[in-house]
Amino acid sequence: MVEKTMEKIVALAKSRGFVYPGSEIYGGLANTWDYGNLGVELKNNVKKAWWQKFVQESPYNVGVDCAILMNPQTWVASGHLGGFSDPLMDCKECHERFRADKLIEDFCEEKGITLESSVDAWPQEQMTAFIQEHQIPCPTCGKHNFTDIRQFNLMFKTFQGVTEDAKNTVYLRPETAQGIFVNFKNVQRTSRKKIPFGIAQIGKSFRNEITPGNFTFRTREFEQMELEFFCEPDTDLEWFAYWKQFCLDWLSSLGLKEDEVRYRDHEKEELSFYSKATTDVEFLFPFGWGELWGIADRTNYDLTQHMEVSKQDLTYFDDVKNEKYIPYVIEPSLGADRMVLAFLCSAYDEEELEGGDMRTVLHFHPALAPVKVGVLPLSKKLNEGAEKVYAELSKYYNCEYDDRGNIGKRYRRQDEIGTPFCVTYDFDSQEDGAVTVRDRDTMEQERVKIEDLKAYFEEKFRF
Amino acid sequence: MVEKTMEKIVALAKSRGFVYPGSEIYGGLANTWDYGNLGVELKNNVKKAWWQKFVQESPYNVGVDCAILMNPQTWVASGHLGGFSDPLMDCKECHERFRADKLIEDFCEEKGITLESSVDAWPQEQMTAFIQEHQIPCPTCGKHNFTDIRQFNLMFKTFQGVTEDAKNTVYLRPETAQGIFVNFKNVQRTSRKKIPFGIAQIGKSFRNEITPGNFTFRTREFEQMELEFFCEPDTDLEWFAYWKQFCLDWLSSLGLKEDEVRYRDHEKEELSFYSKATTDVEFLFPFGWGELWGIADRTNYDLTQHMEVSKQDLTYFDDVKNEKYIPYVIEPSLGADRMVLAFLCSAYDEEELEGGDMRTVLHFHPALAPVKVGVLPLSKKLNEGAEKVYAELSKYYNCEYDDRGNIGKRYRRQDEIGTPFCVTYDFDSQEDGAVTVRDRDTMEQERVKIEDLKAYFEEKFRF
Repeated sequence: MVEKTMEKIVALAKSRGFVYPGSEIYGGLANTWDYGNLGVELKNNVKKAWWQKFVQESPYNVGVDCAILMNPQTWVASGHLGGFSDPLMDCKECHERFRADKLIEDFCEEKGITLESSVDAWPQEQMTAFIQEHQIPCPTCGKHNFTDIRQFNLMFKTFQGVTEDAKNTVYLRPETAQGIFVNFKNVQRTSRKKIPFGIAQIGKSFRNEITPGNFTFRTREFEQMELEFFCEPDTDLEWFAYWKQFCLDWLSSLGLKEDEVRYRDHEKEELSFYSKATTDVEFLFPFGWGELWGIADRTNYDLTQHMEVSKQDLTYFDDVKNEKYIPYVIEPSLGADRMVLAFLCSAYDEEELEGGDMRTVLHFHPALAPVKVGVLPLSKKLNEGAEKVYAELSKYYNCEYDDRGNIGKRYRRQDEIGTPFCVTYDFDSQEDGAVTVRDRDTMEQERVKIEDLKAYFEEKFRF
Repeated sequence: MVEKTMEKIVALAKSRGFVYPGSEIYGGLANTWDYGNLGVELKNNVKKAWWQKFVQESPYNVGVDCAILMNPQTWVASGHLGGFSDPLMDCKECHERFRADKLIEDFCEEKGITLESSVDAWPQEQMTAFIQEHQIPCPTCGKHNFTDIRQFNLMFKTFQGVTEDAKNTVYLRPETAQGIFVNFKNVQRTSRKKIPFGIAQIGKSFRNEITPGNFTFRTREFEQMELEFFCEPDTDLEWFAYWKQFCLDWLSSLGLKEDEVRYRDHEKEELSFYSKATTDVEFLFPFGWGELWGIADRTNYDLTQHMEVSKQDLTYFDDVKNEKYIPYVIEPSLGADRMVLAFLCSAYDEEELEGGDMRTVLHFHPALAPVKVGVLPLSKKLNEGAEKVYAELSKYYNCEYDDRGNIGKRYRRQDEIGTPFCVTYDFDSQEDGAVTVRDRDTMEQERVKIEDLKAYFEEKFRF
């Protein structure tokens, strides 16, 4: 078993066109990343696979696509304007800046101190007192001389209109969920859905994180795939269980292995005050277990808040039970970028071949692979026939044409970008109208009629 | 011929779930819009159709997906920090704010004055002098007492990190194009493409427009579908012609009619100083002709600018000609939101049926229709069989199940949302394993075996 490291994965991502550092020719911009020619296909496939199972095939759910800029009252109702902040403090000696909760956690871990509750749930005074009491030193300069803690809001602020004043202040949404909540009645009305039903959204969100990192795992600009599922009060825990299982099934249907994925149920004291239950689905990244999916029973908290702030009626009339209620909500919320990173990490392998050669290979599920079929003419003399095969298959999915280098090298190259099948057009192809299809994982080859290729692959790309 | 008005289209869009006002429960936010359960499908289909022809099937082009937040040096190089601004002035009497160029244009139109050059190309002093000379009055209060003109930059500004100072200022990208230019070398290297080749991107951009309007035609937050096509110097005008035709073919393959679309070639004096040729593809909206696609020969301007500011080598080595050059660029740039609006306007119709009834119908090309197939059991007793048909077809595309109301009403409802086919499962279906397929446009019906439906529809959804 080869060791998977982030260094290897980041290097492959860059050299093969999955992910480049953002604005690289200008020395980058903090932790921003751009998806390259293969990365964009991989990410689109991940989003497509999510939409397919969570919206298209679901008898319950429909989608929306809301604006990133929303009326600021939204963030009053959601609590983001008041409470979505990090506790920051500066070292007065060396001017380094820290998150107070992280400072305490790191200190306790180093000293072997076990805390009774999670630090990020502590009030500010408790953190200040603890740092004082233990005379926690600055991790950079070792002195103990900190400023007071101040709360730093994580929303990106901008100004719409000409003047940069409070009246024109708007925020980049920190989550896609609120666009769904404010449209609950609109969507219910236009889709004519009855409860239980869900509304799904894929889109960018922004959080001014102090410590982004681990490649694309935590970035300030990121894409979310969120579902808000509305159900009758008292049925919420059943639906919570349903979606928990649904998410896990989706991951395993796309090839994540059992020992790479685990649930982490939140303890009572870790839960948000309005949540009845929350579970994280975690993935084993090379840097350790990291949250992939947060599945939360949010009760009727969000809709209640929006009702109070907007003074609009967001209740639902249940014509089966003949009663009106505020629906409960189950929220499975997934980051598209970390999902892509997890699939990339999971797929990565280095294998020894017969004869002792090594190959780097990405074992993507065929539905996710950025290039579905590599079309390789055995000789440049065969380009005409091979190009026809390429043009025909390209109508259905992303293919790559490669006529450069010997065939073994071309196979290696397609392995390294995770192409599940290579079609080799050889001198017999002109005669027998067939090509050789080579499987990335088994490396076995099979002769298939050109006219049968579409049907042959269609079966393989299902999930 | 029925009159298409924006009022009708906006009303249908809202009532059927295409587009809602953004943050509506809070009274909205300027000109922001949210795509509803049908709108998101329509928009995704438009983006998919673009990606399919411009990337997937194209032997030339690959895609990228870059961050919205970029290193601010990008906007120095692109000219957006220096020159991307509107000339604004306030009326000192009534405090209304105006764009000076629009003020002059409107005044001249009203007075029948013909100008020799386009006002937006005038230097600021010329505008000031003209307003003074003609004593142009304030359109709101009629007085002539304006502030000086000041240049207002159209980029949205925000702060990354804790302090709101110049060092931390970043901008929301005003166009997706620059993400492509800064990655030119990365993509060329990782895709191993040779010139000519193109890089395509779909993504959100932001412009702090003073006068957004006409529904989703001009919004501050919008989505672009841009291609930057890199070619050898001196071949640019050929490629300009190629992409101009390609764009028009794409529009007509998706059902836009000849009399709804026209080219508008920019006059010499209207061209940006670096552009050799620019053409707008315009669509006849209910409010008049509006720009859909801008196709520009940008010469080697962008790459040259980025080379100068970044000090990086962005030249291309042409191993066929054995020489190094800075590629020329053809840019077909399309707004996804206005493209969606154009398809919606083009599809809209009201038709008189036999017997004198009217129907509202959206004649979307089947590839674009948000719901591909409506599955309708003739009676609720037939739900079991009909649901199986729905579940099977839903694996391939977005379908809707409707068992409410009489069949005629259900057809009307599907017509109104542009569903190209309805499948009716009736009492014979259980016996003969077949259903009735009804065509939205001809309203003709045909009996099709359930097992043949997939192949039957596949042919129809091609474009």
